[in-house]
Amino acid sequence: MSDPRSRIAPSDIAPLRDLALALAEESRRQLRAFYAGGFEVKRKPDGSFVTSADLHVEKQLRGMIERAFPDHGILGEEYGAHQPAADFQWILDPVDGTEDFVQRVPTFGTIIALHYRGEPVVGVIDVPMLDARVHAAFGLGAFRGTDRLRLADLDPATPPTAVRIMTSLRANFIRHRDDGALFDAVTRAYPNHRIYRSCYTHLCAATGQADAAIDASNPIWDIAAARILVEEAGGLFHVALDYLRGEDRIFTTVFGRPTVVRHLAALLESAGAR
Amino acid sequence: MSDPRSRIAPSDIAPLRDLALALAEESRRQLRAFYAGGFEVKRKPDGSFVTSADLHVEKQLRGMIERAFPDHGILGEEYGAHQPAADFQWILDPVDGTEDFVQRVPTFGTIIALHYRGEPVVGVIDVPMLDARVHAAFGLGAFRGTDRLRLADLDPATPPTAVRIMTSLRANFIRHRDDGALFDAVTRAYPNHRIYRSCYTHLCAATGQADAAIDASNPIWDIAAARILVEEAGGLFHVALDYLRGEDRIFTTVFGRPTVVRHLAALLESAGAR
Repeated sequence: MSDPRSRIAPSDIAPLRDLALALAEESRRQLRAFYAGGFEVKRKPDGSFVTSADLHVEKQLRGMIERAFPDHGILGEEYGAHQPAADFQWILDPVDGTEDFVQRVPTFGTIIALHYRGEPVVGVIDVPMLDARVHAAFGLGAFRGTDRLRLADLDPATPPTAVRIMTSLRANFIRHRDDGALFDAVTRAYPNHRIYRSCYTHLCAATGQADAAIDASNPIWDIAAARILVEEAGGLFHVALDYLRGEDRIFTTVFGRPTVVRHLAALLESAGAR
Repeated sequence: MSDPRSRIAPSDIAPLRDLALALAEESRRQLRAFYAGGFEVKRKPDGSFVTSADLHVEKQLRGMIERAFPDHGILGEEYGAHQPAADFQWILDPVDGTEDFVQRVPTFGTIIALHYRGEPVVGVIDVPMLDARVHAAFGLGAFRGTDRLRLADLDPATPPTAVRIMTSLRANFIRHRDDGALFDAVTRAYPNHRIYRSCYTHLCAATGQADAAIDASNPIWDIAAARILVEEAGGLFHVALDYLRGEDRIFTTVFGRPTVVRHLAALLESAGAR
């Protein structure tokens, strides 16, 4: 089957990307103000945090999308699905890494993506407190500011100990079912790892600041921007695991420099990912 | 034996702390300039990175100390020991987290400490790109800016899954000998962990942004500031492991909120730390 995105006129993609960048700018402005000025913190039924900042920013971004593209769908972490049958779906996570946002650890970020019939067309990750933003659009490339991102591959002979990866924490791997063996396999084989618990790792995989990232047990809004960012930068995006949990599809993904992704995918498979 | 630090007149401690803060300010100014402007990168014989920034900043800080306190000793990561028999020893690591500095990941930091007969008198950790600095001096308290740091303890009944820790990566645990079992035990028992590979974790343990930090297989300059910072904030600092490697003593340490440190110390011991 042909890629459904090839049916979108290239001239239609730039305005979609521009809206995504405007959403990221608005989110950054508001999150910086909340970070400095304070916000309310609550626990959700699953024990995770939600703040008045998450809720406020998601509502604002939804309003901006509805005004610009009233027939598009919107899926956000906090307010659910709007027009879920539409071809174009905006997928939003205004504060990815809420626990760190609450603790004023500045690696949390905003994830904004637009999918067309399930395929990513635009992706933006913004890390407001680190002044870091990457964006990509189908066929238009991936960028950090005005710098085009191009992921060089690693020499396939590079030993795993010399590869620099970013992974989810163990809590992610055991969130819905026990995939802890995958965490153990990854951290043993690739001892030079970082754990930030946010989409900052996705940004680093797209820029090459990490050779690859692994993110475990995520709903779609957590990884909605990563694939287009990494693919437009010349990297690989691989789904190592996916399964249904209630109505949500849950994904464990690996992405970054092609050789590293292929090695990690094989490692996860041999460690039991299925 | 009484604490040798009690022999230092309290009025002598503030000027020592003030020099440490001046060193941190100078280090921050220079590292921000190198980060923006570029620097040379080399590999050391052990495979780790050293940059022209590390070398330049350490030399500058050494000069400032020698001018202010010519009879003090200085131990730095890059230039070795100066007057190693002196009672007062300044211990410096201008770029802790050099690999991240090289990749422009902004969690690297500067460690500055002053020890008196082996006991910490002053400690400063500065994370230039996050605008984060903590300092402490013996008997004078621990501070972030002008805010006094006071670590509240956790309820001893808090389950480990609800505790927020920061740990070294597995590469640290297996650097000189295989203590990988400790990494596995910690990440299994405390699945809500972060890994930054720098003294940013020490800063977070002193402020309470993490409930505790574990740092594995370090020479003295990597952990020289952590103990005074955490103890003056009301926390515990525990050496879980120490051994000689050549002439260097190597430490694996746990520090932060007292209850969490005690639990982690027991866990490390039962996992084989000795």
